[in-house]
Amino acid sequence: MKFHYIDKIKSPDELKRICRDNESAKEAIADELRKYIIDVVTKNGGHLASNLGVIEITLALHLTFCSPRDSIVFDVGHQCYAHKILTGRFSEFETLRKKDGISGFPKRTESEHDAFNTGHSGTSVSAALGIARAKALCGDKSKTVALIGDGSMTSGMVFEALDDVGQSGLPIIIVLNDNSMAISKTVGALGSHLSRMRTSRKYINFKARTNDVLRKVPKVGEPIAKFLEKCKNLVKYIFVPNVIFENMGLTYIGTVDGHDINALTRALQIAGNSERPVIIHAVTRKGKGYPPAENDAEKYHGVSAASGAKKSAVSNSKVVGEKLVQLAKENEKIVAITAAMPSGTGLIPFSETYPERFFDVGIAEQHAVTVAAGMATHGILPFVAVYSTFFQRAYDQILHDVCLQNLPVVLGVDRAGLVGDDGETHHGVYDIAYLLTMPNMCIMSPSCMYELREMLELAFRIKRPVAVRYSRGSLPEREDAKPVVFGRWETLRTPGQITIIATGRMVDICIPVADNLGIGLVNARFINPVDYEAISHICRSAKIVFTVEDGITVSGFGARITQLLSDKDVHVYNLGVPSKPVPHASVAQQDELCGISGTAVLRKIKEKAALHGVYVYDSESGKI
Amino acid sequence: MKFHYIDKIKSPDELKRICRDNESAKEAIADELRKYIIDVVTKNGGHLASNLGVIEITLALHLTFCSPRDSIVFDVGHQCYAHKILTGRFSEFETLRKKDGISGFPKRTESEHDAFNTGHSGTSVSAALGIARAKALCGDKSKTVALIGDGSMTSGMVFEALDDVGQSGLPIIIVLNDNSMAISKTVGALGSHLSRMRTSRKYINFKARTNDVLRKVPKVGEPIAKFLEKCKNLVKYIFVPNVIFENMGLTYIGTVDGHDINALTRALQIAGNSERPVIIHAVTRKGKGYPPAENDAEKYHGVSAASGAKKSAVSNSKVVGEKLVQLAKENEKIVAITAAMPSGTGLIPFSETYPERFFDVGIAEQHAVTVAAGMATHGILPFVAVYSTFFQRAYDQILHDVCLQNLPVVLGVDRAGLVGDDGETHHGVYDIAYLLTMPNMCIMSPSCMYELREMLELAFRIKRPVAVRYSRGSLPEREDAKPVVFGRWETLRTPGQITIIATGRMVDICIPVADNLGIGLVNARFINPVDYEAISHICRSAKIVFTVEDGITVSGFGARITQLLSDKDVHVYNLGVPSKPVPHASVAQQDELCGISGTAVLRKIKEKAALHGVYVYDSESGKI
Repeated sequence: MKFHYIDKIKSPDELKRICRDNESAKEAIADELRKYIIDVVTKNGGHLASNLGVIEITLALHLTFCSPRDSIVFDVGHQCYAHKILTGRFSEFETLRKKDGISGFPKRTESEHDAFNTGHSGTSVSAALGIARAKALCGDKSKTVALIGDGSMTSGMVFEALDDVGQSGLPIIIVLNDNSMAISKTVGALGSHLSRMRTSRKYINFKARTNDVLRKVPKVGEPIAKFLEKCKNLVKYIFVPNVIFENMGLTYIGTVDGHDINALTRALQIAGNSERPVIIHAVTRKGKGYPPAENDAEKYHGVSAASGAKKSAVSNSKVVGEKLVQLAKENEKIVAITAAMPSGTGLIPFSETYPERFFDVGIAEQHAVTVAAGMATHGILPFVAVYSTFFQRAYDQILHDVCLQNLPVVLGVDRAGLVGDDGETHHGVYDIAYLLTMPNMCIMSPSCMYELREMLELAFRIKRPVAVRYSRGSLPEREDAKPVVFGRWETLRTPGQITIIATGRMVDICIPVADNLGIGLVNARFINPVDYEAISHICRSAKIVFTVEDGITVSGFGARITQLLSDKDVHVYNLGVPSKPVPHASVAQQDELCGISGTAVLRKIKEKAALHGVYVYDSESGKI
Repeated sequence: MKFHYIDKIKSPDELKRICRDNESAKEAIADELRKYIIDVVTKNGGHLASNLGVIEITLALHLTFCSPRDSIVFDVGHQCYAHKILTGRFSEFETLRKKDGISGFPKRTESEHDAFNTGHSGTSVSAALGIARAKALCGDKSKTVALIGDGSMTSGMVFEALDDVGQSGLPIIIVLNDNSMAISKTVGALGSHLSRMRTSRKYINFKARTNDVLRKVPKVGEPIAKFLEKCKNLVKYIFVPNVIFENMGLTYIGTVDGHDINALTRALQIAGNSERPVIIHAVTRKGKGYPPAENDAEKYHGVSAASGAKKSAVSNSKVVGEKLVQLAKENEKIVAITAAMPSGTGLIPFSETYPERFFDVGIAEQHAVTVAAGMATHGILPFVAVYSTFFQRAYDQILHDVCLQNLPVVLGVDRAGLVGDDGETHHGVYDIAYLLTMPNMCIMSPSCMYELREMLELAFRIKRPVAVRYSRGSLPEREDAKPVVFGRWETLRTPGQITIIATGRMVDICIPVADNLGIGLVNARFINPVDYEAISHICRSAKIVFTVEDGITVSGFGARITQLLSDKDVHVYNLGVPSKPVPHASVAQQDELCGISGTAVLRKIKEKAALHGVYVYDSESGKI
């Protein structure tokens, strides 16, 4: 691809220089950014619609402020691509989300322009306030900006942060990127409120309005802020006061056309000169400039890599969604709850078939879990489908509201285990460890599609807290799977001197290993409760036991098995994910990195077998 | 104590009957409730100010609604005492918070009138909405009420829930008990907003106002609701609209004098007839009717049992607070953050000495942690002091914002371990398990005051995520404690065939056990990283190792040690808290229940020693 501008921009300073010399450059740069992002994302996969939506905002931010002195915090961070390209990462951008390439999210280790690592939604306002507080304590006058989407605004921690921002009075700038849909459509009363503001005063020409004010101001710059401070009432009137934010102590500026660089720059300048917190309400179009994404922004929210994508396989989420519709048909007490992920969690068919039994609460995992607990006290059987990494937000609610009360809430723990190119902030590798400690919690982990369906059915029958954890992508269909019985594991290869106990996605990886070495393999369908009978059967012949899981090894499933076998005369080795951040790469590469790929497991077993003098057969080499 | 009314009230129906027959009974009952609660709480310990503040509200709720058909959810639940007395638990109330007595919080297993178990703040609106949704799905027309304090309103999950309530349009009733202070004073912009409303229209005589409306209504009851629905604008005008709540889709009624039973009853009747969500803003006085509590409600928030309280010992929290002031004097980068617990966490001296470096963010643990992470990116060294059980709310923020970024944030994990009479919702027994899985996290656990002070000092030196977990109450002063060195354990009794590895508060319990049996004892000052050298030293002589911790055994410190020793020829037994709810009792009783009291540990060691044929000396019996 050939560019005229963006391949030459090594820093925001150069961007400023180019735009100062050539007034028309801004729009041309926006076009080039758009083209480049579409090109790379359709090849590498990544977030498309969100990045296309904030190109003008990103340009305006870098034209107005001086990163890295001024700090820009990206909420979620899935919209930082233009920022990366403009801050010296033009050529690296080709390696987006590839192993050893640049991350799809802000990373402080990658660039000093990435002020704060993000990945989960709703952290930006807290982080920005923290940065602003640190600066205030050190007498640093530089600016701090948070860029946050309207979807993230439904997250409770943003409210906690805004409450503190208003109280602090510190001059942080919050740019609300309102594209009228988060990942899915914005839900909740706040969403309707924002929507009312949009429709009642669609794209008010901010330029004209500010000019009206500015004309009355002697000089541009510092005086503006003072003027604004002095005539608060006038400003409030002109800038369309928004009751929610104003009541929380923030000055509100909006709405601003989020694709008009000049209007945005002016709004940011005014905000930058304020000595109080300011929120700028920018209205954007998700997927702007790429018609397929504009028309179906949810579909183009996350795009998978074009190359080598075996998209023909039906995803686990889809299977869950279909099974749930079937179960709901048979049992009218079943309802489904999700947190702004109806599509990602496969719940669209359910929401269409049973709209009155489907609840999307927005990016509000805490509430999603406790509202389910409330329903469960009155005979309803809620299914809460959330990605494993986002369930972390509801740790306390799962423990305090579901488990301590022993309520029949079924958690659909989607994207459990390693997730690939989204990287360290998105892995679902902690759920086994944290769910294992919670009273009454049953944890199931299917290794094939049959088990996934059966476990869902079982989950609603046993009337207690249940987590069904399933990986990203597609589990295999395994023809010979035996019926799923509560608390019972499945013997796949007869236990011997060496036996593998694997769970979930790891089972399919371990089958060829077991066959290759002629050793035992047990499918730990239930992580809790464990199958004591199967364990004692394994111990009858085992000298070495290997546990394999796609979760954190410390405190995980394997640690539990080790604990249970501690009194037995058997060596136990736990294979799983180490307690350190696992960077973005393909899932297969991450498996290899963590030592849980087929070859890594094979290698480890041979090594330990040799150490303990147990002979294994290697069908590849034919040696014993 | 002699009563005229409350000892005869076995159910809310009887309360209704008495008050119907005798108009003056209400106030007399309120007086009796107040006396009885003061009497029992000053004997047994418990929450005093909060309960005295809601006596009239509780009476009005039970006079208006029909529990258990109508559901009443108490946020936090520390204000449910009058409710318990009025719902058939008058005589059991004497056993409040005692082992096998009634709980200080709502418990569904205790009474059908307790609609939802609470303990942590901010869950009530979600739970009430869940209940209301379940009722709507089943065609149940009964009412659902949440009673929530202004402090809990700063909790993010309440915002998530309100957003969904407004959207749902379901007729739930939220009674906002605004006593202008949560546990400490309400902080944050919302707090100021509520305060402005209070002061600008203090105690508007709701009675007169409603009468104005009601006079125009032909009949009381159903017609009121219809009338209200029809003349929304009039109602809005009369009932003082509140922009925040109205914008979120809730009808606002307020302010109402929270100690005027008749005014409250009328407000509840109107709310009960609405077909939309309603919020009633009641203004109360915390500690109402007990002058010491009225004057110092924070001190009387939680009261310890009068009998046998060895209050002379300085608490761990106090030592932390004092040490922090000293450290902050030496290092100006140190700041302190708490979540509405400045007194409980011992930070009052710090807040007075360094007001500009002290931040109370309200009941907002998520924000507290991420704002600390933000500060840490700019050279500040934040200390976040929160109770272990409440840090659960910030699980994701600790992992995602602090640990993955490896930021130097020090968590002061107060009330770690078993906490006694607050019971199952308040134990800090999960922190070891969940912190152990988090990358970069260093976990220290002092066994004596010297270590507590030294560990705090060390925590700020090592510039990484650190959790210092200390128990409720007072650790001993141990004269012979050796200097604290990063990652090193302390040998207290020379390891032998049997060695105990204990951590934190458990060390002091294990010293006499080790002396009694003549076995080894090691103080695991660092839960992570562990001291590999000490472990290999222990293994040189050990046949049996016991780990002792006041945390969940599954996935805890002991499990980690077991995992590390799995390849060694040694039997490992993990003593700790089982994965089931531990009910309220004294800490000593809970230790006994969990098998981690001195006698229980002794018993277990003797049993296992006999099993493995290792002889131990019993200094008590003098036998080997």
